Amino acid sequence: MAPKALAVIAGVGPGTGASIARRFAKSYSVALLARNPTNYEPLVQEINSNGGQAVGISTDVSDTNSVNSAFEQIAKQYPDTKLAAAIFNPGGGFVRKPFLELTEDDYTTALASQAKGGFTFAQRALPLLLKARESAQHPPTLIFTGATASLKGSANFAAFASAKFALRALAQSLAREFGPQGVHVSHAVIDGVIDIPRTKGFVFEHEDAKLSPDAIADSYWHLHTQPRTTFAFELDLRPYVEKW
Amino acid sequence: MAPKALAVIAGVGPGTGASIARRFAKSYSVALLARNPTNYEPLVQEINSNGGQAVGISTDVSDTNSVNSAFEQIAKQYPDTKLAAAIFNPGGGFVRKPFLELTEDDYTTALASQAKGGFTFAQRALPLLLKARESAQHPPTLIFTGATASLKGSANFAAFASAKFALRALAQSLAREFGPQGVHVSHAVIDGVIDIPRTKGFVFEHEDAKLSPDAIADSYWHLHTQPRTTFAFELDLRPYVEKW
Amino acid sequence: MAPKALAVIAGVGPGTGASIARRFAKSYSVALLARNPTNYEPLVQEINSNGGQAVGISTDVSDTNSVNSAFEQIAKQYPDTKLAAAIFNPGGGFVRKPFLELTEDDYTTALASQAKGGFTFAQRALPLLLKARESAQHPPTLIFTGATASLKGSANFAAFASAKFALRALAQSLAREFGPQGVHVSHAVIDGVIDIPRTKGFVFEHEDAKLSPDAIADSYWHLHTQPRTTFAFELDLRPYVEKW
Amino acid sequence: MAPKALAVIAGVGPGTGASIARRFAKSYSVALLARNPTNYEPLVQEINSNGGQAVGISTDVSDTNSVNSAFEQIAKQYPDTKLAAAIFNPGGGFVRKPFLELTEDDYTTALASQAKGGFTFAQRALPLLLKARESAQHPPTLIFTGATASLKGSANFAAFASAKFALRALAQSLAREFGPQGVHVSHAVIDGVIDIPRTKGFVFEHEDAKLSPDAIADSYWHLHTQPRTTFAFELDLRPYVEKW
Repeated sequence: MAPKALAVIAGVGPGTGASIARRFAKSYSVALLARNPTNYEPLVQEINSNGGQAVGISTDVSDTNSVNSAFEQIAKQYPDTKLAAAIFNPGGGFVRKPFLELTEDDYTTALASQAKGGFTFAQRALPLLLKARESAQHPPTLIFTGATASLKGSANFAAFASAKFALRALAQSLAREFGPQGVHVSHAVIDGVIDIPRTKGFVFEHEDAKLSPDAIADSYWHLHTQPRTTFAFELDLRPYVEKW
Repeated sequence: MAPKALAVIAGVGPGTGASIARRFAKSYSVALLARNPTNYEPLVQEINSNGGQAVGISTDVSDTNSVNSAFEQIAKQYPDTKLAAAIFNPGGGFVRKPFLELTEDDYTTALASQAKGGFTFAQRALPLLLKARESAQHPPTLIFTGATASLKGSANFAAFASAKFALRALAQSLAREFGPQGVHVSHAVIDGVIDIPRTKGFVFEHEDAKLSPDAIADSYWHLHTQPRTTFAFELDLRPYVEKW
Repeated sequence: MAPKALAVIAGVGPGTGASIARRFAKSYSVALLARNPTNYEPLVQEINSNGGQAVGISTDVSDTNSVNSAFEQIAKQYPDTKLAAAIFNPGGGFVRKPFLELTEDDYTTALASQAKGGFTFAQRALPLLLKARESAQHPPTLIFTGATASLKGSANFAAFASAKFALRALAQSLAREFGPQGVHVSHAVIDGVIDIPRTKGFVFEHEDAKLSPDAIADSYWHLHTQPRTTFAFELDLRPYVEKW
Repeated sequence: MAPKALAVIAGVGPGTGASIARRFAKSYSVALLARNPTNYEPLVQEINSNGGQAVGISTDVSDTNSVNSAFEQIAKQYPDTKLAAAIFNPGGGFVRKPFLELTEDDYTTALASQAKGGFTFAQRALPLLLKARESAQHPPTLIFTGATASLKGSANFAAFASAKFALRALAQSLAREFGPQGVHVSHAVIDGVIDIPRTKGFVFEHEDAKLSPDAIADSYWHLHTQPRTTFAFELDLRPYVEKW
């Protein structure tokens, strides 16, 4: 039996990344990248207990060597496996401060986590996605997670918006270069608060006012299953009561 | 047994509209609106033969009385049926001419078919969609079909782009007003040539260079099934080789 | 002595239109179009008293015959005069209502005043602007006035946003078709409350919170004086304290 | 006599930066920042010979210490002078390559030159611009130079577009934070080839197909003179024959 194809998900914590991992693990082996093993360990165990195949790799996406090493480990562990999907869903670099209180480190950390992190991740993933085209059930897919700040540079968001705009530029550029080569590159704008443990305390006037990580994952899976005749590049996801 | 919920699709021909009708007919009764009965008759027959429920109603979306009368007919035929989805996928108003050769009639026909047509359709559909919220399996959904010209006013497209920009404004405005009321309003930007009988002769350098109407329909269905925590407003769909 | 070149300004009331008229009257004869003569009469008198040359023509921009007749009158009155600039600054069609309270008339009036009005105005003005290229001091210029609703379809703005999006599409399309022919087509997004008699009662927390019509006019004049090497298409103007 | 106010222009070579310097030198002392003294020396001499006041400071905008040291030098040389305008017009970081040929250094250099450079420049300039508000003839102004790649991530432009998107996000964020404080922050999208010595050999089908640096400078000056009632944030400048 041919080995299952693989999905790599960078930025796995208790939120969107975990839901994406569970969704893609229904069809693929999954490699879960997060800085802190506590972020992926319970999930790896959960997926493996439920009949899936998961490994976790401690990775700092802002550090090129760390990303390289993660992909080397993947290559060793899954030597004949095709890369079906690569999801860049980084958590780092968020900062909200008046501009004159931002430090240079705030600014460069945001860029390193989101923009440079996306660059390195894409450089490692794209050769594998290109190689997987022939035998793939769905076009090999590279998805980047965006935010409100991907489209709007609000006051106090100079660092995070710079990083998220840059990541979106990267995604657009890759979609235009690799789409015609058969790799589906997408960018999802997540516009609202996600319903994760960290936001449990955020109370809203309306029910259902937080994004469901599972529903986000369903949309990522939908993007992945689109045939090459009909690729979506961008999707904006928000709760029904969100102001935009 | 409760009657099946209903989907109304305006603008049904041999292309996207037909695929949407087939997709939504798997779960719902469908009412298919088109000016010319030859556009819906074979499809109505096909769906009914395959165990679905379809009716066709001859409707000119640019004519308010005609749209009103279609919705009256729907109300009579399906008195207790909930409206699950309304899709505005109009075909009219396309015109490509140097600006000084456009007639006033070209311009107003484009606006009437797309913008005013969308307005009338939404005014009839929204009260029904609001009424269907309680018992609906998925949030009641109103989807508008856009085009490249929804985002870019190209030379020689003054009339069509005006109409498609207007339709997108309508969709945005409705999403912001009715989203918080639990109706999912979306706009799909169809950016490329669709693979339909009329475009069979269009030959491209690459395979698969035309949008698949069935894949477009799958994306519309995906939009429809999103929970209210996680609504997408806009989706851009194009063939992998399309320049954009 | 050669006759002064001409500027035509449609939509002249006590606000932006008047300031544009005064600004362009420093260099050109001006023809001022407004539905109601009380809107242009004092201004015509003021300009003529100050050494300028102005005429007013009662015109309903939503009525094609009325626009045609205005341009015929201009042709008669200024048979040898070159059209240096045409400004479409229409006031009609504004309406803010919950969608289900909008009437068909609200919707079509908005489209007729803004979109179709812009279409007719451009069809009459462009042949004259093209003819004026040779001898013009600055590239002949066609400017459309937009609004916040040109870029965002907000709740309760379905009609006005549809019309303003359509007008922007028209402007884009004309810029792409006539720019390369040497006519400068621009669109100005006026994002905020303008300081005019009608808004005197609007009190804001901060000083200077309303747009200055004279400053808007200065920006229109700046657009007009750009050489063809360096055309701006779009400009967004707002008070320093405006949220956007 | 009060000392003339000051304008600081970062990114001065034989193109746009030089034209901006000449334009602002008509009203202000100018401090010209460029990595290489050969880029500013002839210009400093020219401005000083023509009755203006100019100094050049060798500065690498991608190096925080270098930017800090430039502003220290400015503070020493013009201790009582108010900063009227700061223009960030960086030349570095341009790279056009297939994505898999881009090096990490290509990517981080682009971000450092444009995004981080803009961040550092703004951090030094904004306190001075805020201090200058009271006595300023025009609202103190911070202008960033963008490019086609500020709005569109094209194939082969992943690095440059990331950097230019990030710079635009920075500009937006600063406009929203410092506009309400009376500092005018703008972003100009320069969309086309600029007519400078380096592009003399680029031959186009049409005359005047390159942007005039002097006309760009006139637009920057126009932005600077806008009152706070009527700030433009963004302006797109292109030759009349440019495709967009």
